[in-house]
Amino acid sequence: MAVRVDVEFGAKDSFGAVKRGDLIIVVDVLRCSSSIVSAFANGAKAVIPTETLKEAYGLREQHPSFLLVGERKGRKLRGFDLGNSPLEFAQEVVEGRTVIMTTTSGTRALVRCRRAEHVLVGAFLNAEAVAKKAVEIAKRKRVNVSFVLAGEKGLFSLEDFLCAGAIAFEFPYGRFDFSDEALVAVLGFERVKNALSEYVGKSRHAKHLIELGFERDIEFSCMLNHFGLVPVYRDGKVTLMR
Amino acid sequence: MAVRVDVEFGAKDSFGAVKRGDLIIVVDVLRCSSSIVSAFANGAKAVIPTETLKEAYGLREQHPSFLLVGERKGRKLRGFDLGNSPLEFAQEVVEGRTVIMTTTSGTRALVRCRRAEHVLVGAFLNAEAVAKKAVEIAKRKRVNVSFVLAGEKGLFSLEDFLCAGAIAFEFPYGRFDFSDEALVAVLGFERVKNALSEYVGKSRHAKHLIELGFERDIEFSCMLNHFGLVPVYRDGKVTLMR
Repeated sequence: MAVRVDVEFGAKDSFGAVKRGDLIIVVDVLRCSSSIVSAFANGAKAVIPTETLKEAYGLREQHPSFLLVGERKGRKLRGFDLGNSPLEFAQEVVEGRTVIMTTTSGTRALVRCRRAEHVLVGAFLNAEAVAKKAVEIAKRKRVNVSFVLAGEKGLFSLEDFLCAGAIAFEFPYGRFDFSDEALVAVLGFERVKNALSEYVGKSRHAKHLIELGFERDIEFSCMLNHFGLVPVYRDGKVTLMR
Repeated sequence: MAVRVDVEFGAKDSFGAVKRGDLIIVVDVLRCSSSIVSAFANGAKAVIPTETLKEAYGLREQHPSFLLVGERKGRKLRGFDLGNSPLEFAQEVVEGRTVIMTTTSGTRALVRCRRAEHVLVGAFLNAEAVAKKAVEIAKRKRVNVSFVLAGEKGLFSLEDFLCAGAIAFEFPYGRFDFSDEALVAVLGFERVKNALSEYVGKSRHAKHLIELGFERDIEFSCMLNHFGLVPVYRDGKVTLMR
């Protein structure tokens, strides 16, 4: 039996993927997924995603040594150590630390997948590594694969869709049964893979981030396969898969 | 002001486009749009789309000279003159005739756009012609453009998405403000434009049609810019725009 590859647009559609028992790859290129990958690349111990600000502040109160990071409307919040820029997660700040993270879309998408057995965090930064791990688990456990694109307010997001394409591009085509969405995502990625940041920069959310002064985050988040690590979400936290 | 270009997945989402007052391009490549284009290329006088079978049978009773065509589950229906294959619409059958058409998705999408002022029927067959007409109207009337992809049960359809891309590919990029969906549609189309039928043949709906024996319909429907005509839906019927 071929492994099915589906794409769900928006956190609210993650429900279907969880219900099907799929391995889930959560994608929020700008910027949650990229920040999580960056945090682990610089030695973070764990990332605890929360849906609400209240939970985030509460956790910090319980664990004063944890870092508190994230954004609303793209901006860092009162009392937070860091915002949601992958470039902020420097080694001297995050090494060995547990990070509480709350963002508008990405952490919400993760939390909504909490009942799934396998949840990986995918970005351009670790596309190939995530793909290899997903293929291995899907074959071993005989489960299908669903991308959950974090997309703000359930909107289609160019960068997340192309990133799903970048990851699915690494799947063995003959053994995987791609949905129409997954096929088009791969085609779109193939078209732009040599000029990722140029095209990602045209997206709605990228334009918003550029207005806020985060242009370098876009360039960084488009560094394809820069890291070989795979963050996995289980039991309420994201850790590095060994 | 730049003209906004949006994409709505599925007939049910046409509501937003109608409400915004956009010029609408309805796309159902497999096979309603392609059949309508084919009917006009072979001299049909008008096409009356209906949502329900009941309306279609009722109209035929009132107008025995009208042709009755369409499908449910891909198959021609009892008492129908033709199914929904674009290859059936031969000149000797349709020339000078008014055609009552009811299909699972395409005619439904059209009828749901009945309150819009400008509704064009787009297919690969007439992509360039539809694009030129849409650009002309959008500039003259200062309206935005929305693609309504007929997508069965609101599902994403590879062929309709790529066809929106084929049409948007002809828009003057600098003067049009593309949504993320519209941008990705163009990228996907650019990737496959020299092998359209090969890629469209991988779609969910194409596989279904191939099982039913309609492989040639797919090849025909992928003949990019084969016809220079633009069908327009107004006052309950589709006619050829002069």
